[in-house]
Amino acid sequence: MNQWEKNIRRTVPYVPGEQPQEEGIIKLNTNENPYPPSPGVFEAHKNININRFALYPDPAASELVRELENYYGLEKGQVFVGVGSDDVLSLSFLTFFNSKKPILFPDITYSFYPVWADVYRIPYECPPLDENFLICPEDYKRENGGIVIANPNAPTSIGLSCSAIEEIIQANQDVIVIVDEAYVDFGGETVLPLLEQYENLLVVRTYSKSRSLAGMRIGFAMGNKRLIQALTEIKESINSYTMSQEAIRIGAASLKDENYFQDNLNKIVATRERIKGELEQRGFAVLPSQTNFLFARTDKMSGGELFEKLCEKKIYVRHFNGERIRDYLRITVGTDEQMDKLIKAIDDILT
Amino acid sequence: MNQWEKNIRRTVPYVPGEQPQEEGIIKLNTNENPYPPSPGVFEAHKNININRFALYPDPAASELVRELENYYGLEKGQVFVGVGSDDVLSLSFLTFFNSKKPILFPDITYSFYPVWADVYRIPYECPPLDENFLICPEDYKRENGGIVIANPNAPTSIGLSCSAIEEIIQANQDVIVIVDEAYVDFGGETVLPLLEQYENLLVVRTYSKSRSLAGMRIGFAMGNKRLIQALTEIKESINSYTMSQEAIRIGAASLKDENYFQDNLNKIVATRERIKGELEQRGFAVLPSQTNFLFARTDKMSGGELFEKLCEKKIYVRHFNGERIRDYLRITVGTDEQMDKLIKAIDDILT
Repeated sequence: MNQWEKNIRRTVPYVPGEQPQEEGIIKLNTNENPYPPSPGVFEAHKNININRFALYPDPAASELVRELENYYGLEKGQVFVGVGSDDVLSLSFLTFFNSKKPILFPDITYSFYPVWADVYRIPYECPPLDENFLICPEDYKRENGGIVIANPNAPTSIGLSCSAIEEIIQANQDVIVIVDEAYVDFGGETVLPLLEQYENLLVVRTYSKSRSLAGMRIGFAMGNKRLIQALTEIKESINSYTMSQEAIRIGAASLKDENYFQDNLNKIVATRERIKGELEQRGFAVLPSQTNFLFARTDKMSGGELFEKLCEKKIYVRHFNGERIRDYLRITVGTDEQMDKLIKAIDDILT
Repeated sequence: MNQWEKNIRRTVPYVPGEQPQEEGIIKLNTNENPYPPSPGVFEAHKNININRFALYPDPAASELVRELENYYGLEKGQVFVGVGSDDVLSLSFLTFFNSKKPILFPDITYSFYPVWADVYRIPYECPPLDENFLICPEDYKRENGGIVIANPNAPTSIGLSCSAIEEIIQANQDVIVIVDEAYVDFGGETVLPLLEQYENLLVVRTYSKSRSLAGMRIGFAMGNKRLIQALTEIKESINSYTMSQEAIRIGAASLKDENYFQDNLNKIVATRERIKGELEQRGFAVLPSQTNFLFARTDKMSGGELFEKLCEKKIYVRHFNGERIRDYLRITVGTDEQMDKLIKAIDDILT
């Protein structure tokens, strides 16, 4: 090893789902929305002034922040925006988890949490989910340097009630509690109403799932002004201008098409429940989902094998090789047409 | 102070130049390009498939990376892209500067360097520029944990020769040396040819200045494959998808309009030299610029006062309150028309 290599920070990176660029595949592996962005997004894209791309964007992304504050009924200074919720979450880890005590998150959850903890040298412990893949609030009543909970959780798809999360926050008012609500729009119970009571609560959301804008990279955090200010200061210590002019404009426009948004969510939830039934009819165990994906397994074939066989049929789902979940597949809810093809493929494979 | 506030990371953020959104101002304060992006950028924007915004972008931004490798004659694996060069530089600090020894950069340089060092808890020392605002390679021949040099330097506008930088790299083969070439396209001497000889060299560039794309947020680094791989792993430990689909597409398109690019650079350099002459005729001391800005002072008025008076006339330039530079103004080179208005305003103020 060269001398200069000794100064390089080492980590084990997160591995995202594949993003195959070929046409003709059915992509159910990264929980994207199968429907296009809202009509206002198309308009905003068409009308943007490209000459102004020569100028830096507003570093505060004020237009987008203001629209989000309005949409969620928050005060000025309660919203922070970033390059997807991963940007917002990683900045939150860096900003808020500077204790020598371990932060806590479940053993089965978004697999980026341990990666952020590692890259920023944050100690962590992972209380296991119970045998039904549920988070036990009791496990979070011990000394810690902060807590992060995905709710609904991934890849399990299961949501916790607002009151169960409140029990965790209640017991942890000396640290910052992050609730990652990436999937909440699909039927989870949000903890947003708790923001008024708990100044140590940060709620993180994304445009990548419910708003059909994974490709534009928009995420945000909501919390009390001191938290948002702290997050802003760290962001401004790393990159003044993270949100492109186009992301700011399109993110703001998307919030105005409420009917489109709700219709889209309803369609996905209806498809999800229908396909859950189809899978259960075929003997699959399917966890109760409050997200835009299903977490399912069958006794007839291992998760890894079924994953491979679906790949061969150009249907991409997600398989995690973790101890308690390796027999499951995480299947994004696509259009009805896509899901019918999935069911047909499963029938071909298993019968 | 609440208990939870004790875990918050504290920093003193970088303060970017103002981004006033009003019309009718002359904006010469953040070194943006006064000309629009290239014709190919307009085309790429128009033709992008907005339906695909629902999908995540290619995490490797392969299309953009490939075009940059071709453009600069590099091999596959030698280019890393990010959300502006600030993203690339801050990730580079986090990735490469993990020694207990101080990193080195000049006392007068891009003021984000000490901010990144602080936020990531990297020790640093700042050898002073000489009395002519030049970097002295001798000062970089001491024990250190890494080196970062802006070349041409900002806000001084002065470039160092490739051989002077090579002297620094030559003496520091046990650490990583970053050369920040944000402004090099405007007449500086690049160290790119040194990449073949020095595996510890990383060259960082941006689309924000010479390519008129500050609003789209694109920057990149070039270096040997091990450096690029290390940077990629840290990036993938923070945010899988930093580059939007649009940034990838537009960044690639911009590289294909070489004639437009060169004409644009030539215009800016011609305007710069003309305005340097105009200022010198009026008794200003103007440093020799290899950038798209001028660093100038007059004995007739303090930098702070001239800055304020120009603001009143809706002309924004940049003033830094550092000890040796507070009498200077950093003036972005705009269009000839904008610069003529600047000169007229200066005449109004000083006579």
